[in-house]
Amino acid sequence: MKLYAEWFSKECGLECSENLSRTDRFVLYKTGKVIWVNHGMGSPSLSILLAEMLKIMHHAKAEDVKFIRVGTSGGVGVEPGTVVITTGAMNGELTDKYVQWINGKKVERDTWLDEDLRKELIAVAAEKKIPVEAGITLCADDFYEGQMRLDGFFCEYKADDKFDFLNKIYEKGVRNFEMECTCFASMTYRAGVKAAIVCVAMLNRMEGDQVNIEHDQYIEYEERPFRVVTALIRRQLGY
Amino acid sequence: MKLYAEWFSKECGLECSENLSRTDRFVLYKTGKVIWVNHGMGSPSLSILLAEMLKIMHHAKAEDVKFIRVGTSGGVGVEPGTVVITTGAMNGELTDKYVQWINGKKVERDTWLDEDLRKELIAVAAEKKIPVEAGITLCADDFYEGQMRLDGFFCEYKADDKFDFLNKIYEKGVRNFEMECTCFASMTYRAGVKAAIVCVAMLNRMEGDQVNIEHDQYIEYEERPFRVVTALIRRQLGY
Repeated sequence: MKLYAEWFSKECGLECSENLSRTDRFVLYKTGKVIWVNHGMGSPSLSILLAEMLKIMHHAKAEDVKFIRVGTSGGVGVEPGTVVITTGAMNGELTDKYVQWINGKKVERDTWLDEDLRKELIAVAAEKKIPVEAGITLCADDFYEGQMRLDGFFCEYKADDKFDFLNKIYEKGVRNFEMECTCFASMTYRAGVKAAIVCVAMLNRMEGDQVNIEHDQYIEYEERPFRVVTALIRRQLGY
Repeated sequence: MKLYAEWFSKECGLECSENLSRTDRFVLYKTGKVIWVNHGMGSPSLSILLAEMLKIMHHAKAEDVKFIRVGTSGGVGVEPGTVVITTGAMNGELTDKYVQWINGKKVERDTWLDEDLRKELIAVAAEKKIPVEAGITLCADDFYEGQMRLDGFFCEYKADDKFDFLNKIYEKGVRNFEMECTCFASMTYRAGVKAAIVCVAMLNRMEGDQVNIEHDQYIEYEERPFRVVTALIRRQLGY
């Protein structure tokens, strides 16, 4: 996160703050009007960060705030290196809700991401000649069984079950897996904040479960969402 | 985590490794036969770390492995500073299962923690005159609404609802909240590894939602689980 913040500050000629987070749970950097913050892995960790960021934006009286999540993901039927821009978020139950348990009861929250922001991100990626696709993102609560990988410590299903599952969700429009999108698309929507999710597919899960690319290629793929989002921010803020 | 590993290495006259984690997602230190590793916040993040650690233990042919989670928590009807040693793990649905979504279906895993390890930890805490209680731990998937805090960004319930909930779970034997116990107690049990959870209560949620203690007191409370676990390890391994 520090590297991205410093890179952005250099590109735009803006000062980069020190790490402004007072806890050791997150890091937070500010470059001009842009905040760079990590959120950990999984919806529970993200939910804490989002609540804190929404509080900060509220107390700062920030207006027209936009949240963009940048990350890596497992592609479903897309080539490694493809940037997937999320059209909708799906949970492990295969519905488009973010599920919370409050007072012992199941609460299902709507998920929604901003269409204009998504279209603009897709246009920017195309201009920069970065392979891009729009699709539904499946939010898993674990990396292995929830994504039906065959290389976990536990594995009670067969390869055929995995491919049946991948084909089923592909048919429903899913193009990648990550572990935060339902929470992100629900909390931002509920708070009235425009939001987008931009994740690169590090592999095509239809072809295997392990990322098998050279280190330099890995780094180049990992940077793609950052490059797309940076270009969009520069355009929108005039940096 | 680094501080705890270094502290332990000094106390026992053992060498402390460098950070042995190859990713920037976790840190891992080794002191003699003991590994110190962080797991992030929430079950999804922990599930990744546990899968990786179980793989490492398997390939290292390690025998009689024990996993102990050390952390902070919100107390339910216990005084701030009390170390709660988990007897059982409860999810947001108020059952003792770890819920996974695999292939679009709900899978409920049993949770279990080692009784002998728990009794020994309680005895060690009592010897060291550290206030200790045994009780059920409630695993929430978020910090605010899942724990019915009144100070989150979103809050749709009233103070009375919160106290009714806290009283209800207290009656069921719950003594603290954290965000990882069902996953931890399920994955370790499933892998045949003895496990325990040792968390200090930083506040009594019956009295309020925010930790209101001096910094020095905070640090002293935070160290208590580490001190109990360190004493147990030294006794068991003869360090």
